[in-house]
Amino acid sequence: MAHTDVLDLPLVLLSNRGPVSFDRDATGRTVNRGAGGLVSALAGLAEHLDDAVWVCGAATAEDAAVAEEAAGQALLVQTHPMPHLVDPRFGDAVVDGPSIKVRVVVTDPVAYADFYSVWSNPILWFVQHGLYGRSMAPSFTRAEREAFENGYAAVNRAYADAVADEVRGRGGKALVLLQDYHFYLVAEHVRRQCPDVVLSHFVHIPWPGPDEWRVLPADIRERLLTGLLGSDVVGFHTRRYARNFVLCASELLGLPIDLDALTITVGDRTVRARYYPISVDPAALDATLASEQVTAHVSMLRYIFGLDDDRQLMLRVDRTDPSKNVVRGFQAFGVLLEQHPELVGKVSFLALLQPSRTDVPEYADYIALIGAVVADLNAKYTKDGRQPIDLRMVEDFPLAVAAFSICDVLVVNAIADGMNLVAKEVAVVNRRGGVLALSETAGAHEELGEFAVTLHPFDIQQMADAFYAALTMPLEERHRRLAAAAQQVRANDVARWLADQLADLRRVAGF
Amino acid sequence: MAHTDVLDLPLVLLSNRGPVSFDRDATGRTVNRGAGGLVSALAGLAEHLDDAVWVCGAATAEDAAVAEEAAGQALLVQTHPMPHLVDPRFGDAVVDGPSIKVRVVVTDPVAYADFYSVWSNPILWFVQHGLYGRSMAPSFTRAEREAFENGYAAVNRAYADAVADEVRGRGGKALVLLQDYHFYLVAEHVRRQCPDVVLSHFVHIPWPGPDEWRVLPADIRERLLTGLLGSDVVGFHTRRYARNFVLCASELLGLPIDLDALTITVGDRTVRARYYPISVDPAALDATLASEQVTAHVSMLRYIFGLDDDRQLMLRVDRTDPSKNVVRGFQAFGVLLEQHPELVGKVSFLALLQPSRTDVPEYADYIALIGAVVADLNAKYTKDGRQPIDLRMVEDFPLAVAAFSICDVLVVNAIADGMNLVAKEVAVVNRRGGVLALSETAGAHEELGEFAVTLHPFDIQQMADAFYAALTMPLEERHRRLAAAAQQVRANDVARWLADQLADLRRVAGF
Repeated sequence: MAHTDVLDLPLVLLSNRGPVSFDRDATGRTVNRGAGGLVSALAGLAEHLDDAVWVCGAATAEDAAVAEEAAGQALLVQTHPMPHLVDPRFGDAVVDGPSIKVRVVVTDPVAYADFYSVWSNPILWFVQHGLYGRSMAPSFTRAEREAFENGYAAVNRAYADAVADEVRGRGGKALVLLQDYHFYLVAEHVRRQCPDVVLSHFVHIPWPGPDEWRVLPADIRERLLTGLLGSDVVGFHTRRYARNFVLCASELLGLPIDLDALTITVGDRTVRARYYPISVDPAALDATLASEQVTAHVSMLRYIFGLDDDRQLMLRVDRTDPSKNVVRGFQAFGVLLEQHPELVGKVSFLALLQPSRTDVPEYADYIALIGAVVADLNAKYTKDGRQPIDLRMVEDFPLAVAAFSICDVLVVNAIADGMNLVAKEVAVVNRRGGVLALSETAGAHEELGEFAVTLHPFDIQQMADAFYAALTMPLEERHRRLAAAAQQVRANDVARWLADQLADLRRVAGF
Repeated sequence: MAHTDVLDLPLVLLSNRGPVSFDRDATGRTVNRGAGGLVSALAGLAEHLDDAVWVCGAATAEDAAVAEEAAGQALLVQTHPMPHLVDPRFGDAVVDGPSIKVRVVVTDPVAYADFYSVWSNPILWFVQHGLYGRSMAPSFTRAEREAFENGYAAVNRAYADAVADEVRGRGGKALVLLQDYHFYLVAEHVRRQCPDVVLSHFVHIPWPGPDEWRVLPADIRERLLTGLLGSDVVGFHTRRYARNFVLCASELLGLPIDLDALTITVGDRTVRARYYPISVDPAALDATLASEQVTAHVSMLRYIFGLDDDRQLMLRVDRTDPSKNVVRGFQAFGVLLEQHPELVGKVSFLALLQPSRTDVPEYADYIALIGAVVADLNAKYTKDGRQPIDLRMVEDFPLAVAAFSICDVLVVNAIADGMNLVAKEVAVVNRRGGVLALSETAGAHEELGEFAVTLHPFDIQQMADAFYAALTMPLEERHRRLAAAAQQVRANDVARWLADQLADLRRVAGF
């Protein structure tokens, strides 16, 4: 077949979490579609192509069972209208809707734990979000080095072999899209086995400058960078991350770079750093907002927080990750109430926090600190039985969307955040002239900063002042800004995120 | 007078600690010359010029008394052979040796405390050495902002006014050399008052990349950068710091830069970032080494550590600053002894640590952690009454020089260190083929890394391996490397550091 477009090439995707996951209930095996913009966008692409396969890890015991039955082969899953595994004995013949091929890679559990729970999190996550204090942590001993070799590197090799196997099964030439910080070593392995691939690796979290990477052992950071440089394109959310990546190639590997063109010369190849801000699916959000479940939540929230009177609602929706900066956010709220006592009893702060990685001590400690500051402020500022902070440790998307739609201020004060999709979700569904209060170091600030109130995440007083500015902003101005932010997000949705990457890969591949 | 060289211009120096300090004993007022390479080099320059004045702070109560008597005027101090204050009634007539004019600036003690003990240390020190963990510290409240305005900014203005006053008193055209992180706002103030100055600011500590600076409030970091950009040349120890500075001007101020030329365009001016590695005075070190006091210490140390048998001595000499990474250094030593039990009883580690900033909680905590790891290792590995670690909390330069001269391995494993002169001192005075074990993130590594064993400061196993490589290196190889390092330092001494800066300023000034 003559390829006249990069999408005429077979497509091989890789991410740690796949597009579907299997489980088991009383009726037998069940299939769940993954949630989130990334999975939706890539699954939509894969479903519409003639020949696509998604390589991923086993998220459940049933995933592992399915993978074992498949004996290393890809499975065909029909995703609509009702997701189900297609019986391989009948093949494509019985498929009557969108489908996707999935190859689940199962690795040794000890190796996977070293890969996922030692190196991906916390080490790489902490380095890339700048969370190490350095005077005491991190330290790398033989244990961490062995976890790298036997865990991160070994698991990356297993996934790379699966990807290369799928590429070879398609004649050795394919478009390969790798995702995120779990797989920095994959591109190089795949390219070595399949030199004709068109390969892109997208990094979904921040990429800090060279100094930050110096906390990693020299050989390991060099291998991570060299691994990524097996790609044709390394994608990031923002220009800042892409620049930092190019500077790393210069300072840590001594490679020739062009900082303006964002290119790196690796032997006779040119690797391009690019930025594509990930986004949301506005139509899906609109549909969720219109659902009965969300409508019911909206009524309840309006009642609880007295929003039909002249009360106001601040909102945050985050994982309980130290990078999200929840504690300083509440401290700034406390300063706001202290300096503007007229707001006590009039402004509530709803925090929907999803507990995360509670097996990591830093995360468990952080939850305790959140509880402490909330208790302190609620003890100080409760008025007429109304607590200033309503802290809920839940993951409930319909509840979150309901809150998005009616908040007066959304607080995103992350220390560092690759993108932060909550800001974009609020821009799309808010109906109350909600003001985005956005950290300058969240990726979303590069696109939405001009419509937002900027937060400086370490500057408690500045955040308190910014909250005050947001709460007292004239309603007309609030609606004007919100409309502009919504327009920006709708025009740059997740489909655009993918289309821009494909357009660049088209050029790289010479189409 | 026609100026045919930049050194024909009057010279105005500024540093927090001056070239002399006053005290009082039973005989009355005493004068002490400051120690250290920087003061010696700059004082030597000032003494040899026709018209030079050094603006500095009051380090002692007697300094403040002297300043008050002088009523804002500069004082003349004869520095050799016997330092003394020249009675202003007689003026230059009675001076019969090298002399220097000193203007001591006295500021409000509260403002000075905010300037020195809040902003200079710990905030700027921590930011520039990458010591903040960010999940909980730093936080900026109204208190820190007020300390900046009323402390750092106010004190900078007072010093800038004194500098500008001295420049105006010399006809408005002078060479101005500003020193270090205490005075980032001075250059801009001085240039505004005296646009004809030729102005350089030298930063003696690391300069991190833009992301690290983002922990500071936006307005404050912009003022610090803008302040520095009042200079013609901003000097650093290494190319890496100079690049980081240029990147900051681009990313935090949006100014046009040329990263290869290391220049920044500020309106119609060009500001140059340059790097001049500071160094030591080899002749002074040679003289110290030959002194009776050092000779006596050498005999004692050789005896204590059994160096005339086949025993070996590792050494570190540092302040107890978390950036020096003392704890991980000992942890790596522990791994060395664990993995090479034949070294137990054969290798000692002498640590001469100078307690520092013990009023800052992080520093006090760090001393406790040092004590804990030393006690643990000495409990585990003491053999035949010989403890593996000899920890001494002292500041004793002759003892340090004695140890420099006879150590087998010098350990410099700093997390970040502007230069680290200890490495250069050891290179000059060591007589035992001492191996430099140098952190890749110490400034000295840029010059001496090729003769050293490189340490990766977070990588305990790598440091243990590097210590082993250093201890077992053939003696001939050790002497070859040491000789090369000594030659590098002797050829690039502190006089060269100053001469290179003056050569660049000559070009800037158009001579």
